[in-house]
Amino acid sequence: MNADNQARVINVGILGCGVVGGALVELIHERREAIAAAAGVELRVTQVGVRSASKERPGVPNDLLTTDTKALVTADDVDVVVEVIGGIEPAQELIRSAMAGGKPVVTANKELLANYGAELSAAADEAGVDLLFEAAVAGAIPIVRPLRESLLGEDVTRIMGIVNGTTNYILTKMSEEGATYEAALAEAQRLGYAEADPTADVGGFDAGAKAAIMASIAFGARVVAGDVYHEGISEITKADIDYANELGYEIKLLAIAEVIEGEQREIGVRVHPAMVPCTHPLASVRDSFNAVFVEGRSAGELMFYGRGAGGRPTASAVLGDLVDAAANLAAGTHRSVPVGAPCRIRPIDDIESAYYLNADVDDSPGVLAQVASVFGAHGLSIRSMNQEGGDGDGAGSARIALVTHQARERDLQAALHDLRELDSVTGIGSVLRVIES
Amino acid sequence: MNADNQARVINVGILGCGVVGGALVELIHERREAIAAAAGVELRVTQVGVRSASKERPGVPNDLLTTDTKALVTADDVDVVVEVIGGIEPAQELIRSAMAGGKPVVTANKELLANYGAELSAAADEAGVDLLFEAAVAGAIPIVRPLRESLLGEDVTRIMGIVNGTTNYILTKMSEEGATYEAALAEAQRLGYAEADPTADVGGFDAGAKAAIMASIAFGARVVAGDVYHEGISEITKADIDYANELGYEIKLLAIAEVIEGEQREIGVRVHPAMVPCTHPLASVRDSFNAVFVEGRSAGELMFYGRGAGGRPTASAVLGDLVDAAANLAAGTHRSVPVGAPCRIRPIDDIESAYYLNADVDDSPGVLAQVASVFGAHGLSIRSMNQEGGDGDGAGSARIALVTHQARERDLQAALHDLRELDSVTGIGSVLRVIES
Repeated sequence: MNADNQARVINVGILGCGVVGGALVELIHERREAIAAAAGVELRVTQVGVRSASKERPGVPNDLLTTDTKALVTADDVDVVVEVIGGIEPAQELIRSAMAGGKPVVTANKELLANYGAELSAAADEAGVDLLFEAAVAGAIPIVRPLRESLLGEDVTRIMGIVNGTTNYILTKMSEEGATYEAALAEAQRLGYAEADPTADVGGFDAGAKAAIMASIAFGARVVAGDVYHEGISEITKADIDYANELGYEIKLLAIAEVIEGEQREIGVRVHPAMVPCTHPLASVRDSFNAVFVEGRSAGELMFYGRGAGGRPTASAVLGDLVDAAANLAAGTHRSVPVGAPCRIRPIDDIESAYYLNADVDDSPGVLAQVASVFGAHGLSIRSMNQEGGDGDGAGSARIALVTHQARERDLQAALHDLRELDSVTGIGSVLRVIES
Repeated sequence: MNADNQARVINVGILGCGVVGGALVELIHERREAIAAAAGVELRVTQVGVRSASKERPGVPNDLLTTDTKALVTADDVDVVVEVIGGIEPAQELIRSAMAGGKPVVTANKELLANYGAELSAAADEAGVDLLFEAAVAGAIPIVRPLRESLLGEDVTRIMGIVNGTTNYILTKMSEEGATYEAALAEAQRLGYAEADPTADVGGFDAGAKAAIMASIAFGARVVAGDVYHEGISEITKADIDYANELGYEIKLLAIAEVIEGEQREIGVRVHPAMVPCTHPLASVRDSFNAVFVEGRSAGELMFYGRGAGGRPTASAVLGDLVDAAANLAAGTHRSVPVGAPCRIRPIDDIESAYYLNADVDDSPGVLAQVASVFGAHGLSIRSMNQEGGDGDGAGSARIALVTHQARERDLQAALHDLRELDSVTGIGSVLRVIES
């Protein structure tokens, strides 16, 4: 940043004028003087690229609008490009063109970064420009910069994030108000938290893209969306949540990225619902809030909490990056980011976790022992096990609930298979991974 | 940062070799290669300044030790200086000398920054070097950098922090295990969380210094430790905590800094215990953990959580800054920080809050009305009020507990004065500020 009292004018071209783009134009207008005083750059929006220039856009002067986005990214009156269109193309092509022409880029595009992040970082480095994307993960929460800069000296071992507000809202309603999954989803859709087709959120795809980006940054590894194993929340029942609460847990959809040291370093990266102990900081993240929990060998446990979506919160994160890119440009410098090295992704079958499961069994003596011996045969150690309903007289049915110690997914699946073969087991309910406190 | 594959060697001189300094030497050693790969600089510790060179320091090679700290800060084989001595002098003199000689400085010294932060920032700017201090507030938690950089575009309106681990540990023990204040303090001392003389922690002085630093950064204002009103936790009783829990609150020692817009912009900055709603993210910050809750006009609510003290966690934050300073030095740049402008501090009498209080009263008809009319006379509006014990027959005593709406401290104090004059009021118990959810 420069220390002159005279703020240098930096012209900004914005690709996209939806909820985030519109909020950004307003925000730049509101904060222009404060930013000039603090960072020595005066931001001026010169062009806003849109698909249709005839649509009314409150707060955005009509003469800024252009449909010629290709011209925008190479225009002389654009110094920095902000991309808030989303999706792979034409976003990627436009970003590449801007960077090739020496223009720094700020983007909020998680889909693009989760698929082509390494290539785009390499292109930015080659062009000698900034490519910043704080808003692509967990919206307003500063997490990309802390991981890239504050924790550069830290040996980060694991990241667990609640990075999808829609699913967290649904799970909170189910836990706190006893809503069914269907009712909570309908409420989320009514409030605009969930899309008419909620698959990207409830299926864990959105969280998966963010997991890939976080893993790439935290571990300097080349992880893409396709590397991420994911399960969603649509199978979670009210009964699962009641069980979890009774045992002192909340159920949360977690995006987890971790380093697994072994003969060779591997990265585990996955999204699934998990039981989180009530005393864990992630358990108290409610409603549509997001949070990213980071474990480091020296720093210990850290958590970053805030709004993961919404026009103004996301625009706030974009603006933080924009000020940085503008100040760097004014100072003739840029932030070089090491491009992720190829890495081995550990297959989900080899991932270890503690597990919770419940099963309906005949109410007869010896069933607990049968179940326990199946687990023992696969090397799975049981931490707690209890039986509900039934009186052991051999008539009717009972339900067994148990929690294992750390076990390999492969062994757990094998035990589940054998469990289903037992005559005394009439059904297996939910199987949930358990986060240990 | 530079993009060369060849890492540039940056020589580091460390002032102080206590818990943090020792951990830092180890950490630099462990992380050297990873840092070189990620940031393009190779950190090499060349000198460690100590008071006594004869003392055994495991992990720190003897030939690095020197007692000539004045020579260290101007030595040719020191490119960057880390100050982890603490206290005002000689730390200030050494830091000034290092910066005047063109050496960037990283410090964890909250006392120094809370008193001379603006002057030191100005000196750094004049010398064209970095002065970084992530570790001075909330230990390992990245909060200084997010406030200075990520939130540069954001209009931050309020910060509330649990920034003292000792007091949070004590309050957690009291709330969760029913410990008395004295027992919890003794336990904290046994574990090394509290000093033999715990005044700096339990009296709110340590939190006050951090509040001053946070206010300075977040609001670009010149706030010093002496500007901060503070109350400690030593008057908090088990009964207060039970009352709070019953009403759905936890009691936390909060460092609060806020902007108060009026005829002129004022800064409110204070430390005191407060009742925090159980659903508020700060309520679930347990044990010796710290957290800083930030409210911004666009970003909404953010929270940063982690370890506020300890050798390795603090050293981790220092190392993050050190990598940044080293990379900037290698790139021939530095981070200029606007020096805080003078600002008006709002006197505590004019600060508004909601209040909780309880009072012992005669158990006779009409007492509630008397109490309510005292509050009404001072323009204070009561949100809830209830009476416990007593049956209204005029014999014995009862206890009234009430919570006000937002009220000015001055008016609350005047009402308390009048309350004490009432014959029917036999005693006023605790008075606590209430954070609204």
